[in-house]
Parts: sequence; structure tokens; C-alpha cells
Amino acid sequence: MAHTIVIFGASGDLTSRKLIPAIYRLFQKKRLPEGTQIVGVSRSAFEHEAWREQLEVTTKKYVGDAFNDSVWGAFREQIFYQPGDIQEESDFHKLADFLKSIEPEGPVERVYYLSTKPQLYEKAIAQLGAAGLNDDSDGDRRVIIEKPFGTDLASAKALNIATHRVFREDQVYRIDHYLGKETVQNLFVLRFANSIFEPLWNRHFIDHVQITVAEEVPVGRRAGYYETAGVLRDMVQNHLLQLMMITAMEPPARFDADLVRDEKVKVLHSVRPKTGGDFASESVRGQYEGYLQEEGVPKNSQTETFTAVKLHVDNWRWQGVPFYLRSGKAMSCRTTQIVIQFKEAPHLLLGSKTRIPTANQLVIQVQPAEGIQLHFQTKVPDTELKTKLSSLDFRFQQDGGQEGMPDSYQRLLLDAMNGDASLFARSDEVELAWGIIDPLLAAWRSPASPPLQVYPQGEWGPQECTQWMTEQGRQWFDVCPVLRG
Amino acid sequence: MAHTIVIFGASGDLTSRKLIPAIYRLFQKKRLPEGTQIVGVSRSAFEHEAWREQLEVTTKKYVGDAFNDSVWGAFREQIFYQPGDIQEESDFHKLADFLKSIEPEGPVERVYYLSTKPQLYEKAIAQLGAAGLNDDSDGDRRVIIEKPFGTDLASAKALNIATHRVFREDQVYRIDHYLGKETVQNLFVLRFANSIFEPLWNRHFIDHVQITVAEEVPVGRRAGYYETAGVLRDMVQNHLLQLMMITAMEPPARFDADLVRDEKVKVLHSVRPKTGGDFASESVRGQYEGYLQEEGVPKNSQTETFTAVKLHVDNWRWQGVPFYLRSGKAMSCRTTQIVIQFKEAPHLLLGSKTRIPTANQLVIQVQPAEGIQLHFQTKVPDTELKTKLSSLDFRFQQDGGQEGMPDSYQRLLLDAMNGDASLFARSDEVELAWGIIDPLLAAWRSPASPPLQVYPQGEWGPQECTQWMTEQGRQWFDVCPVLRG
Repeated sequence: MAHTIVIFGASGDLTSRKLIPAIYRLFQKKRLPEGTQIVGVSRSAFEHEAWREQLEVTTKKYVGDAFNDSVWGAFREQIFYQPGDIQEESDFHKLADFLKSIEPEGPVERVYYLSTKPQLYEKAIAQLGAAGLNDDSDGDRRVIIEKPFGTDLASAKALNIATHRVFREDQVYRIDHYLGKETVQNLFVLRFANSIFEPLWNRHFIDHVQITVAEEVPVGRRAGYYETAGVLRDMVQNHLLQLMMITAMEPPARFDADLVRDEKVKVLHSVRPKTGGDFASESVRGQYEGYLQEEGVPKNSQTETFTAVKLHVDNWRWQGVPFYLRSGKAMSCRTTQIVIQFKEAPHLLLGSKTRIPTANQLVIQVQPAEGIQLHFQTKVPDTELKTKLSSLDFRFQQDGGQEGMPDSYQRLLLDAMNGDASLFARSDEVELAWGIIDPLLAAWRSPASPPLQVYPQGEWGPQECTQWMTEQGRQWFDVCPVLRG
Repeated sequence: MAHTIVIFGASGDLTSRKLIPAIYRLFQKKRLPEGTQIVGVSRSAFEHEAWREQLEVTTKKYVGDAFNDSVWGAFREQIFYQPGDIQEESDFHKLADFLKSIEPEGPVERVYYLSTKPQLYEKAIAQLGAAGLNDDSDGDRRVIIEKPFGTDLASAKALNIATHRVFREDQVYRIDHYLGKETVQNLFVLRFANSIFEPLWNRHFIDHVQITVAEEVPVGRRAGYYETAGVLRDMVQNHLLQLMMITAMEPPARFDADLVRDEKVKVLHSVRPKTGGDFASESVRGQYEGYLQEEGVPKNSQTETFTAVKLHVDNWRWQGVPFYLRSGKAMSCRTTQIVIQFKEAPHLLLGSKTRIPTANQLVIQVQPAEGIQLHFQTKVPDTELKTKLSSLDFRFQQDGGQEGMPDSYQRLLLDAMNGDASLFARSDEVELAWGIIDPLLAAWRSPASPPLQVYPQGEWGPQECTQWMTEQGRQWFDVCPVLRG
């Protein structure tokens, strides 16, 4: 069956940098359904040819060595441009006509990709409905919505309601590109296709879990948007909670979109609600030195560019095992990693002859390194029984073939086209995530809240965060990943 | 305190190839107790100087790049030669006089290293006693006995009795150089200094254990000895059972020689005695093609050069988990490895979308590669949820420093000099091991025994052995180790 991908926000950065390269690569790998056409929609006036030429330049740049002129030659013919303003109802009717004009007779499946400003999502969805573009009597109609999905619980709920006026939940694909990463999906395999990890994956053997998404760059030209968001909204509500859900979830009954998401949602239901003083003792927030000088940031900004939050998952598996979620800008290096910190061995048999530096750790490197390390004790060679921490090491790059790891958008776009929503956020998931974030944002706004800690750029956040962890008898895994070819 | 190492069998291969290089390296690393002297005893007439010169050549050869002329210059002065015949009582009195002549006043500790033909052990020990060389009133006297310790249970018992007439058990060090290997000692650390392996180390999670000691070379010039031994006596009774004990033992109360050996012995006590038909169904024996043509081998020899034996450890930890012990000559490659084969995941969640090749395996490479691999399922990149077996990899060589891994004799000699018998076999251990081997040897001699299987050189033993495993729904880990620098 023919497919059409309609991208709203076609002139945006995401379209040229991620979406078109991903669709091109799928086409090149012959994974894109036959007869798939791409229609870009944006306010700017543009001819098909002019857009294609512009995309050729950017796609070459972002695809790199895998770019092939003759493949592009065939691919570019599938790309179209249709000017349109989200605010103009008539433009959606024109779009509908245009789609009909390029689509073959008979049923056609369509994916609408919302990559506009988030403020326009509701309007775009309403317009799609008004123009009958949601009518799936002649082929599936799906909508992919980019993050952020709301800015708090109330706005997320409103957006869900507005979305459901036009699309059924099974037509809605809220994208979090972290879920398209190979290493994140590997967490499913690691946990549920191996017999040795699951027995250890609980409160009996795990002391705590650390999930870190560190960015090396400061806010830069995104300061205007960032000032209204902060790291809690920008990263924790989506990426970090997603990683936490996959780390903490029970095995689903089957690998089916709703059954998987049922288990993820169950994790969020189990997160202990914070009250009163919890916020002071269970979170740290920071702002890097120089943030106030970024363009568009008010001199008295209280926006956090760093946070570490301690969450408790109150269920049989995780009782007593804190999950530390940490994210920030202008940190030591770019790294996304999940650290499963195991407990110490119950009895230090070699205690008299040895010194145990730290207990076992399973480190799952999500990006930019993609791999797994298992830190464990070995004997220092040529000594009696002195031990040291060594690591069993696995890198995905070793396996990625010459083209390396596929970008997450390839996987997620294809899943959406195939109607597999396993790796997309469901409405209840998004609302529950905001339900965890909102009270924290509110607490930080209160005068009783502990102050925002200023931290120097290029470190692991504020000194207070390191100390906070030390006071709990724990230690951050502050290790930059070693990248290999 | 001064030390003397007296080596009986000084002209033998082991002395030049292993013992002197090991002692030299300990001297070079300044680990040898100050004032340690070495006295070689053998029948050949030799001057100190001539022996030193001969040892310089061989030590250079076996120590390799670490050999240092000026260190050797100091070391050679500590080496002496004393001619002596084990059969001659008077030679032991001369030896006693010679030792007195070179040893300083006051207490001196002595280690007697028996590296002669095994048939001479009893006599040598008796002569040491007769000449009063066992008298430890003026410094410890210890005896190190090379393998084989007996050729069956009766001879081992007799040798123990003879030994105990002259030395107390705590003076006796039965050496099995496998226990001096870093990777074997690492098994202790792996199991007892890590919290993540021990919870999995039992019948709930392990399907079976494979212990393989494969040699690539055929018997060659050792055929005369080998013909009287066979692989069961030569390798299984000592090395393989030692590896099995360390793999299977319970954690000792403390890391103390007797407490460790108590736990090892407990494993042997738990090995299920075989009866009647067990031998046919629970062992395979083979002989490589061409063995009958080796010099000194009778044309009708029934000596096995390969065996695989299935043992059951009847205790709470291991009930239902067979231990497969396999060893042979003229096999695909030289490798000693322990494979912990875990059970399949209890529920193949990804079953519909994937094919699980095999379950998790922990492979402990003992030699010549020294390392650990954990085989586990990962996702094949750029696929939906296809999985494949990957491995977390750890190599000791990476850590050994520029000089690589120390030879096991260094460690064991130093332990004996320090009076630490943890890594030496105790009398009951040796007898229990023979108690497992003897009935198998007897069964093989019976006419009802299944025939010796002939196998081509350079393979993993007889085809029948592979098939035997397949019939049990299992598979040998027939993988040659990859050596890295």
C-alpha cells in the first residue's frame, strides 16, 4: 500500500537534520514501503525543486559517507513541498487536495509528523480534523507529535483532550527519540532475553540506580526556549523518566505496544509522591556559571540547568532502592548512562588480605558510547589476593557494521508507519510523568526551597550534588565514556 | 631468617624450565627472602660453577626479556650443586653436612623440592628422615612433592603413610601448578569478592558446568610414561578435579589453608559414586589416531588419550547440575577453560520476534588465554528485536603489565616458603580424588566397558563425545581462545 509522510514544520532544523536523512536512509536500505512520498509543509513559499535541492545539501551533510548520488536521484522524486500556515483552515484544504493529486487511487496510509513549534500542536491537530485529514476510512491516518508534549500536567492534559477530539489514542505517536536508540532497546533484550540479569534485578541485590543524561554544551542559542523550560521539563520529564521506566518495569506479558506501555505506566504509578520537606532532601538544582549572560536570559533567572532527583519506586521489586535521575548542561562531557549499582558482597571473605574499592556495577552506555560494562572484582596479578575493580566490556559499535549505529529516527519513523506504538509514549504515560515533575517545579518556586546552586562549566554539576550523594554513603559514577572506532 | 631450597632432581627438565626461572624472577622482584640459597641435588657429578653456567643458558631462554645480566650475577652466587643418589643413605648425610657448611649460624628454614621420578618419592622422604633432615627444631622443614601423587588410591595412601612417617601433614606441600595460575585464583575472587555471581552460582540458574583441559600436542617423547598413566590419571585426577573443586566449593569461613581445603574436600565427598552401568553412560574415552605408532606404545594399547566424564555433586547447591570434565591430547588447540552454562531465560518474551541461539555462558579462560567472557543476548543493531549472542570480555593480559602474567611456580614456591598451604593438595584431598578415578579405571578395564573411540588428531576428541553431549540436549563449548598481546 502507498504511504505518505506529511511533515509540518518542514523548514525546521529537525526536518533537515534528522527526519529527511532518516527517511533517505530507510529508502536506501529498501525498508521504506514502496511508493512512500514525503510532503513538507511550512509557511515559506517554496517550489518542490527548490526544496529538494536544499535538502540534497543538508542530507549529504548529515548522512555523510552513506550518501549516494544515484539513490538520492530516485529518492528526491518522492519529495514534495506544499506551503501552508497552521492558522489557515483553507491551507489544510489545499493540502488535502494536493495529497490527493499526488497519491495513487485506492487506500493510502498517511503519517502526519508535527515538528512545528509546540504551541501550534493543538491548532494543527484541530485543523487536520476540520479538513477531514483524520478520516481513516481509506487507509490509516497517524500523527507523530514531537516533544515537548505539554509544559506541565494541565497543558499535557489539555493537549491530550484536543488530540483525542481528532485522533483515537491508537493513532497518536508521541515520539521520544531516546526510545529509538539501540542501547535503550537493548535494555529490553538485556533484561528479558538473558537468564542471568533478571534474578539480580531487584532490591535484594541492587543498592541504587543512577540515570545520567549529561550535556557538555551550554544552552547557547536555545536560551530563549530553555529559559521557559529548564532541565526538569526539557530532559527529566521525558528522556530520564523513559530510561527509568525501562530499567524498572516488570516483564510484560507479551512484546505488544499496549502491554509494554502498561508495564511502563505501572512504574510511574509506583513512584512515591513527594511531600513537604522531601523536595529539599531529595533534589538538588543548579545553574552553570555564565547562564545569566546567555542571550535572552533575564539577570535574575532562577531556571535550573542542572538537577539531580531521588525517586522511590514503591513496589515489591524496588522497595528501598532509590533511582537517582541527573541531568544538566555545560557538564564534563556528553554522556547518557544508566548505572546499576549492586550491593556489596554480604561477607568480605578476602577482607583481611584485600581492600574492596567498590561493589559491582553494570553500566549501560546509551550515548555517545553505546555499550555495556560490568565492573567486578578481580585479583591483581602477581599478588597474593589483592583485588581490584576490572570490567567486562561490550561495545555496540563493534557490531554496528561499517555504517555504525542507525539513528533513532529511522527506527521510530518506520515503527509509526507500521503502526507499532511500543516505543512511543501513551497519553497516560505522559500525564503521569508530568504528575511527578509538577510538584517538584512547584516546590522549587516556593521561598522555602533550597537555593539554586551555581556550578562551574565543565564539571559534574554543583559540588553540593556530590556532597549530597556522599552523605547518603553513595558515589556518582562520574566517568566520561571512552569512544572507540 | 635464612632459607634454603633443596631441589632433588636438579638435572631434570622441570628444574631448568620452571623452578630456577621462577626462583630467579622472585629474586629479581625482591620477593625472595633475603639470604635464600638454592641447592641442586642429582646423581650426575657437577661443580657449582658448571651448574650455574648451564642454568644461565636455560634461565635466559625461559625468562626471556626479563633476564638481566647483573641481577643474574648476584643470583648465581646463591646457587649450589651437591651430587647425590636418592638410594644412597650416605649421600643424604653428605647433603646434610653441605647444607650446614653453606648455611649461616642460627635458625634456617628449608624447603625440599621433590622433582625426581615419582617412584623415588617414598625413598627420598625416608632418606630425608634417616639423615635427620626433617628435624625442624632449628627452623621449619617443608617438603614440596610434584605430581603425580600416586597412581591410584592404594599407592597414594601408601605414599601418604610413608610421608607422614617423616613429615607432619602441615610440612607437606603437594603441588598442582594449576592452582598457582592467576585465573584459577581469580575464581576465588570472582566468586567471593563480587556480589553478582554468587547468587547465580547454583542449581537454580546453572544448567551444567564444563571443564576442559585440551592439549594440542600428541604424546610425543612422553609416550613411555603416558602409556602407564592415560589422561584420567595424568590430568583429570589432579588438574580437572582441582578446577572443579574451586568452581563448586562453598565459601570457606576464612581464607585459611585448612578452612579452604575443608571446603574443597567437601566437594569431593559430595561427588556421587558411580555404579554399574553409569560408567558406560557417563563417560567417553578415546585414543587419537597414531597413538599406537608412538615410540614405546604397544600396538594393542588401550590407554586413553582423551576422556570426558560426567560427575554429579550431590549437595544443595549442585543437585541436578552435571559437571563435565574433559581432557585430551592432540586436540584442536591448547586451552583450559571452565564454562558455566546458565539455564535459558524462563520465558522467551521476545520469542515471537527473535530466535535465541543459546543461553548465557560465563567462560573462564585459564590458559593460554587468561580472561573471562560473559556471553549474553543483545539486540542485533538496526533490526526490530532480533537478538544475538554477544560477549562481555575481560583479559588478564591487559592488566599483567609489561612482564605479563607470572608463572604459577613463582607463587607456589613463595607460598611454600611462607608456610601457606592454601593452594596445595592435602592428603585427604588426594585420596578422595583417587577414590573418584579408581572405579572409572576399573570399569574401563572390564570387558563390558564401551570401546575406546579413535579420533583424528586436531579435533575436539571422538565424534561419539559430541554426540553423547547432543543426546543430553547440551553442547560442548568447542572454541579455541583468541590470544591478544
